[in-house]
Amino acid sequence: MKQHRHFEEELEKLKQCLVAMAGLAEAQVARAVESLMERDVAKAEAVIEGDSEIDELEMSVDNQAVQLLALQQPMARDLRFITMAMKIGNDLERVGDHAVNIAQNVSYIVEAPPLPQLPELEEMAGLATDMLNDALDAFVRADSGLAREIGRRDDRVDELHENVFRILLTHMMEDPRKIGAGIDTILISRNLERIADLATNVAEDVVFMVEGQNIKHHGYKEAP
Amino acid sequence: MKQHRHFEEELEKLKQCLVAMAGLAEAQVARAVESLMERDVAKAEAVIEGDSEIDELEMSVDNQAVQLLALQQPMARDLRFITMAMKIGNDLERVGDHAVNIAQNVSYIVEAPPLPQLPELEEMAGLATDMLNDALDAFVRADSGLAREIGRRDDRVDELHENVFRILLTHMMEDPRKIGAGIDTILISRNLERIADLATNVAEDVVFMVEGQNIKHHGYKEAP
Repeated sequence: MKQHRHFEEELEKLKQCLVAMAGLAEAQVARAVESLMERDVAKAEAVIEGDSEIDELEMSVDNQAVQLLALQQPMARDLRFITMAMKIGNDLERVGDHAVNIAQNVSYIVEAPPLPQLPELEEMAGLATDMLNDALDAFVRADSGLAREIGRRDDRVDELHENVFRILLTHMMEDPRKIGAGIDTILISRNLERIADLATNVAEDVVFMVEGQNIKHHGYKEAP
Repeated sequence: MKQHRHFEEELEKLKQCLVAMAGLAEAQVARAVESLMERDVAKAEAVIEGDSEIDELEMSVDNQAVQLLALQQPMARDLRFITMAMKIGNDLERVGDHAVNIAQNVSYIVEAPPLPQLPELEEMAGLATDMLNDALDAFVRADSGLAREIGRRDDRVDELHENVFRILLTHMMEDPRKIGAGIDTILISRNLERIADLATNVAEDVVFMVEGQNIKHHGYKEAP
């Protein structure tokens, strides 16, 4: 009985570790896009420095998960929870890397003459971080209904990315001095698109965890 | 005794599944870059269609791994092997996605007037697929020495990516009609860079599997 309670506590600890990781990753993405909008290099540098904290949390997730698997030999649902926690940790670490990539691009962009403001990028960042937040919420509450809904929002992010691409292409064609900053901004948009993909990935892992059913690569339309 | 042999056979099957997945992912990357060099849209489309096979292998890896963990309750090294197999499967699936992204960009590029040939991209593809191949070799042979060596080659890929970026920027500045295809080619280069990153990731997972030591985010210089 005592061992069982200990196991539940350890699972809860692992869960909280992932929630903290997701919160940090979301904050990093938001801060990176802020640094772009405000042309604030110091803020961009803070994002780059902040990445090591996410990296450490990923290692902690991996170690906790392997410990739990080794010592507790969990079955069925707990087993899927622990293995998915490792996959989710992997994805959140990559979200952090994308935030760093955005921040790195910002430091190039501020040296060039300003491009038009692109509210699309803020919308993309908002959507992507909301998707991540909901994916972790679905994970914590083991809510596969919420998880299934997340992937559908990915289309809007893709659409915004297309728009950003077209707008910037026009500006670069008109004024070749804008090419450098234009490309960096397209790369930022691409990073935001990838973050939304990773949130979708996490959501798919949650469905697998809850239902034991792998919906990856089959789209959402087949889901009940 | 019989159960033990069965377990070994299942582990071997999981290993072979990952090796097959890596072989496919490497072939997809090579074919995608070939389609660019040869401006061959049919070949690019074959890459896009070929992705579902990798996706299916990933699901198979996940299912085999969870089955093994549930039924066999493996300890220590086998446990790390199985959990790492899932992470490696995740990374290989992303390599396949990058090959698809490259192929998608090729279909835009062939519609535009040709850019200069960039042998750098072939070199990047060669390096990235070699890194992947060696990472899987290190995994199969549980050779952490080989695994540690792989990440060092990532610097050359990054350097080539920088070169490609600079070369294309010059061309786009000189002739704005080349901007569209130039950006698509930069995105291809970025995809190749990411594939090398994923190979490095797999190699780091192999070190963790063999040595039980997490070298991620600490660089390779500290390694013995």
